[in-house]
Amino acid sequence: MKPLVSPYIMQVKPYVAGKPIEELQRELGLSDIIKLASNENPLGTSEKVREVVRKSAERLHIYPDGAAFELKQAICDFHGVQMNEVATGAGSDELLMLAIDTFIDAGASPKDQGVVAEYSFGSYPISLIGHGAEVVTAPGLDGFQVDVDAMIAACGDATKLLFLANPNNPTGTYVSEDKLRKLLVEVPEHVVVVIDEAYHDYIQADDYATALDFRDLRERLIITRTFSKCYGLAGLRVGYAVSTPEITDVMNRIRKPFNTSLVAQEAAIAALADREFVAESVRVNNEGRAQYEKGFAQMKELGLEWVPSQTNFMLVKLPVPGRAVYDAMLALGVILRPMDGYGLPNYLRISIGTQAENARCLRGLKEVIPTLCAQGVDA
Amino acid sequence: MKPLVSPYIMQVKPYVAGKPIEELQRELGLSDIIKLASNENPLGTSEKVREVVRKSAERLHIYPDGAAFELKQAICDFHGVQMNEVATGAGSDELLMLAIDTFIDAGASPKDQGVVAEYSFGSYPISLIGHGAEVVTAPGLDGFQVDVDAMIAACGDATKLLFLANPNNPTGTYVSEDKLRKLLVEVPEHVVVVIDEAYHDYIQADDYATALDFRDLRERLIITRTFSKCYGLAGLRVGYAVSTPEITDVMNRIRKPFNTSLVAQEAAIAALADREFVAESVRVNNEGRAQYEKGFAQMKELGLEWVPSQTNFMLVKLPVPGRAVYDAMLALGVILRPMDGYGLPNYLRISIGTQAENARCLRGLKEVIPTLCAQGVDA
Repeated sequence: MKPLVSPYIMQVKPYVAGKPIEELQRELGLSDIIKLASNENPLGTSEKVREVVRKSAERLHIYPDGAAFELKQAICDFHGVQMNEVATGAGSDELLMLAIDTFIDAGASPKDQGVVAEYSFGSYPISLIGHGAEVVTAPGLDGFQVDVDAMIAACGDATKLLFLANPNNPTGTYVSEDKLRKLLVEVPEHVVVVIDEAYHDYIQADDYATALDFRDLRERLIITRTFSKCYGLAGLRVGYAVSTPEITDVMNRIRKPFNTSLVAQEAAIAALADREFVAESVRVNNEGRAQYEKGFAQMKELGLEWVPSQTNFMLVKLPVPGRAVYDAMLALGVILRPMDGYGLPNYLRISIGTQAENARCLRGLKEVIPTLCAQGVDA
Repeated sequence: MKPLVSPYIMQVKPYVAGKPIEELQRELGLSDIIKLASNENPLGTSEKVREVVRKSAERLHIYPDGAAFELKQAICDFHGVQMNEVATGAGSDELLMLAIDTFIDAGASPKDQGVVAEYSFGSYPISLIGHGAEVVTAPGLDGFQVDVDAMIAACGDATKLLFLANPNNPTGTYVSEDKLRKLLVEVPEHVVVVIDEAYHDYIQADDYATALDFRDLRERLIITRTFSKCYGLAGLRVGYAVSTPEITDVMNRIRKPFNTSLVAQEAAIAALADREFVAESVRVNNEGRAQYEKGFAQMKELGLEWVPSQTNFMLVKLPVPGRAVYDAMLALGVILRPMDGYGLPNYLRISIGTQAENARCLRGLKEVIPTLCAQGVDA
């Protein structure tokens, strides 16, 4: 019989998400579990959003507006962009995949290429490979800094897409305004550049700028934002992309007609409007980051190092394998994110939680790392 | 500059959904509007589901379980299938598109083909074209019956997928058990056959059977179900596919990691469990269908005809263009579904609503059709 699918599909290794709390409950029978694995908002979401969702229970049987008219209007008002420049999706996740689905031609010869930075979001290469593209990885600089020059140099005739997460996941680093401008200007004009700003709201650096400010610098540009992080709507799946009318039109041709739910659309409108909740989320995150930095400093002698973060998570280097620390923390009911899938076996990614969650995580690490070191579990 | 996308993308005409109530409110300033355009459940959804959704408001910030473990377990218990045979998606919509994304190779030469029946769900050809496939349409029989022999004959070496909606949308007709068995046995074994059972719950015919009963008849078989219709969850986007472990595995490689929301997963579990709500929805639908048949019979002399339906909607032939009746009904605050996009300019599709909604629709038609006929608007 003919093979079921093209060979490139079988090369895809599915994305490994943070372990759900329920899964750990099933596996270890624990009840008091905290999850610092998926960069979720520890404050939950705005009370105004919750009220909208509770009310939506009366209209669950109605199809969402496929055009997401009211949500797009709210986004347009917020950013000062036009309706035909905005596409909505089930998280920026879906919009990233939609860009690949739209701009990668699986049958191209030579193969279409997608350029990504080293140690960047794992979904980009997974989706590129799953659509028959070749992934070109631009090496990074010391300290997990994205090398914009290497990304520009990695582009060639076959490059269709370039993905830059700014700030970057899983490293927490960012690209400065100057370098972003350089990238937008110098990447060949035929390449569709995607700037993924999922963690935009958390950034504190003065020399950062959103790519929304530089839309005049290049035509083929998509900027994605999500409601999953600072707005606290990861469970509802909603995000958006801002681009040119031409790019937005072709993405709308390819997307599913009802790709965002009615509940998600209404919740996102309320979330966008509640700026106080966003400000409070950022404040709590800044405090949590300081709390981790202080706690990590006390563990320097244990061999722990961390990457300065502009996001709601911390990338940490350990003196023992990250997977061993991960397992030991699971036994304490703390779910962190192993990084071996990113080629960083000595690292863990820790989401910034509430003060109490951060304290519990730090206590656990202080207990677990010396024990593993004493057992001779080498990094 | 190089063209932005492959030519096949520009051939896609996006799916035209039922007009949302809010859109008509904006356009005509009407307040008392009923929508009988999208085959939604007029009873809403189960009160047990609503309670689950209201409670979910406290956990919107948590990512869904990407594996949808608990929902899949509920589906497995319900159908007696295995966990590795079930994939969940944002409506069966997404699963249909995922099948195309997985099994169509845009670069194949000669082009990969997808076989569909004449007058079947509009999303199949749209998604096939959007992924670079060629659509082969098998002509139907009189009375909008699917011609299973023509579908079998339409399959060739280049056929990758075959879609059969049973019962069918937008006609409301169905394929009998015998014909379904024939199709499953006689379609060449290399073709992945997709049986879309979105309207399964409404069927009353004795000689209908779900393809779930015939999974032993062919290996390459996907059966999709949705929570959008009889379960009343169109606004949440959730459905599932049952297939072989091999097909399920490849579809899981390609899907987005968080394609169903946390709220949708929890709501679907509650919806599946409330069999009383499903039974009541079917009872109300049967009554509504009888109400329409009686009302339509009274309009026979006006030149109205209808297709016997096994679903929650009625396909109606009019003595004047469907678009004219559609517009006149909009002005009365009743949203129906024009069928010119399906190549049926003299038809409308009417969703079966509550008794009061159906009565209002029938009253409107009795008023509108003679007026349009008198104006000499010819079909």
